[in-house]
This record gives sequence, structure tokens and C-alpha cells, in this order.
Amino acid sequence: MSLSSIPSDELAPADRRRQQILAAARRAFTRSGFHGASMHQVCAEAQMSPGAVYRYFPSKDAIIEAIAEEEQVAAGACMAALFGEGDLVDRMTTVAMDYLRAARDSETGGLLVEICSESLRNTTVGARFYEIQKGVRLALHTALEQAQAQGELRQDAEIDVILTLLFAIGDGLMMRLQIERDIELDSVEPYLRRMLSALVGKERP
Amino acid sequence: MSLSSIPSDELAPADRRRQQILAAARRAFTRSGFHGASMHQVCAEAQMSPGAVYRYFPSKDAIIEAIAEEEQVAAGACMAALFGEGDLVDRMTTVAMDYLRAARDSETGGLLVEICSESLRNTTVGARFYEIQKGVRLALHTALEQAQAQGELRQDAEIDVILTLLFAIGDGLMMRLQIERDIELDSVEPYLRRMLSALVGKERP
Repeated sequence: MSLSSIPSDELAPADRRRQQILAAARRAFTRSGFHGASMHQVCAEAQMSPGAVYRYFPSKDAIIEAIAEEEQVAAGACMAALFGEGDLVDRMTTVAMDYLRAARDSETGGLLVEICSESLRNTTVGARFYEIQKGVRLALHTALEQAQAQGELRQDAEIDVILTLLFAIGDGLMMRLQIERDIELDSVEPYLRRMLSALVGKERP
Repeated sequence: MSLSSIPSDELAPADRRRQQILAAARRAFTRSGFHGASMHQVCAEAQMSPGAVYRYFPSKDAIIEAIAEEEQVAAGACMAALFGEGDLVDRMTTVAMDYLRAARDSETGGLLVEICSESLRNTTVGARFYEIQKGVRLALHTALEQAQAQGELRQDAEIDVILTLLFAIGDGLMMRLQIERDIELDSVEPYLRRMLSALVGKERP
């Protein structure tokens, strides 16, 4: 569990300050990008002096690293649902819908787009987020291998191709749902479930 | 048909020059983005003097507009295949695979990512490319309405939700296939066909 999921009045003052800076940095990065946003903008957004901010984070890179760690924890929590009970397609749909709800959230959604575009770029920040994504991919790979061993996924399914399609659907929907605000998330779910079922279903493609 | 699809030795010298500038601009925009790349970079990439380039295009905006027009023509040609003979899922798979081949092409692929990220941004350039996308969406909407009238798409299918998912898959795959170079396009096709079939299939979701 990340600190950001603990109600702020239960945190020690130093942790609360740290969380306040990270929340401000997320807003600044959403607005201006990881490269565009300056420490000055982060300080202004947090309504703190540079001296106060630098006491917690010596650099913008240290803030980005802290956000990457929070995202890694969140991704881990999200992936845990993949290894629960029940039907594989149900579990995958649940994980996908949780992710899409986070993408629709006005506090977190914009940064997800920025993280996604950045992880496609050949930059240090991009490489850090790509590394987190590789962890998610590994978890999904394990889940699909287990499903294949248990006969929930057909034997000739190419797991790496399926994973590429799953990530493509995740990235694409996350971005689309940001701009198409009139599409209800609930109306997407049945179609998503059918697609996932077709993708990992037992029949041959 | 756009000028760029005519072999350059069949073009008049002025058209060849114009095409040379546009090709150079595409490379510069792919590398540095529509905002990041300067006219200076475009001139250097085209190995032409600023005076020579400005004779064809008075501004960077004029170059971007010319590229947008080329993309509009290409999108129109791509969409035409949707209205051919045969099964709806076959036609959609053909259009999707043509788009993905363009995305994998080293000359055109990078710029597609830049166009896609830009059209998600609230900028003048973004709005121009978003407008082209709306034209593509309208063509797909018409194709799905026709399919619904002919009983190829079930009567209660929500066309706008399906279109959002189709665009999400298109955007997502286009970006993924840029970075995952070890995934063969041909191996993606059968899974894509199954997903499209599940999405527009006659059965209820």
C-alpha cells in the first residue's frame, strides 16, 4: 500500500508534507509534462518554498522516482486481482476496469497519459516507467501461463502476441477515455469482456 | 492519391522540391515533435537553404497543413476498403492491417505516434489532426450503420461505444508495435480478427 492511499490526517507531519509535494508534482507533470514542468512550478503548485521542498526531495528526478515507486505499488495491487479465484476473463476484466477507472479520475488520469507517452520515448524517465511496465507484463505472463497449464487458455496461444494486444488495448482505451468524456465506462465493460474472451478464449483464432 | 505516392522522377521539378521538403519535415517532426522541430531543422534535413524552403512554404504551419492534407488523403484511401465487398470483419481487418503496416514503416511510423499524441492535446496542430480523425470516425460510423441495416451487426449494438474501442485498439497497437519490434505483424492478424469479430459480432455482448 502506498502512502497516498492513507488518509492524510493519519500521517505524521513529515509524511503529510511529502505527500503534499507529490500530489502537487503530479498536477504539474500532468499539465506540463515531466520535462516541461520545473521545480519552481512544483513549489508553486504545492504552495511551499523551494527550501521546504528541497528538504524532502533534492531534485526533480527524486520526485519522479518517488512517483514511479507509487505507481509500482499501485500496479502490483492491481495485478494481485489477476491471481484470485474464478474465471480468467472475469479477473482480467476486473483488472482492466480498475485501471480504466483510474484513467478517468481527474486527479490521476492525466498523469497516466504522460507516463504512457514518456515510456514510449527513449529517455531516462521513460526507461524508469517502462521498467514498471515490464513488471506488469511479467505478472500478466505468469497469469496466462498458469491459465494455459489449467486449460483456461488454449495450448497453441502465443502469450507474447496476446500480451502485446492486451497492452495496446490498455494504452489505447486509457487515452481514448480521457478525450471521449461522453462514453460511459459501464457501457464499455461488456464489449471489453467479449474482446478479452476472444483474445484468450479456448477456440483457435 | 497524394503526390508522395507518385515516383519522384515522374514529378515536375517544383513538385519534387515540395515533396523533398515534406519528407524532410516528416523526419524532423518525428525526431523532435511538431512543436520542438524548427524551420531551421527542416531546412537542414532537406539540405536546402531557408530561402529555397520558404519559396514553397511560408511557415512551419504551412508545412504541417500540407502533411495534414496528405494524411487526410491517405486516411480516405484506407477507409475506402471498408465499403468494398465481402464480410464486415474481413474488411475491417484489412483496413486495420494496412494501418499497422504503415505504423511499422520506418519512414511513416514515428510521425503517426507524434500525430496521435498531438491530437490528444488541446493545441491548434492537435485540433487539425483530430479533425481528420473525426472524418475517419464518420466513415466507420457509416460502415457500421450499413452493416447494422444489413443484419451484419446486431440491432442493439452501441455504435459509438464500438467506435471508441476500435480507435483505442488502433492507437494502442500503432504505438505498441513501434516499440515491440520482435512481434511479427502477421502473428497479430488472427488475434485482431477474433477481437474485431467479438466486437462487431452478431451475438449479444
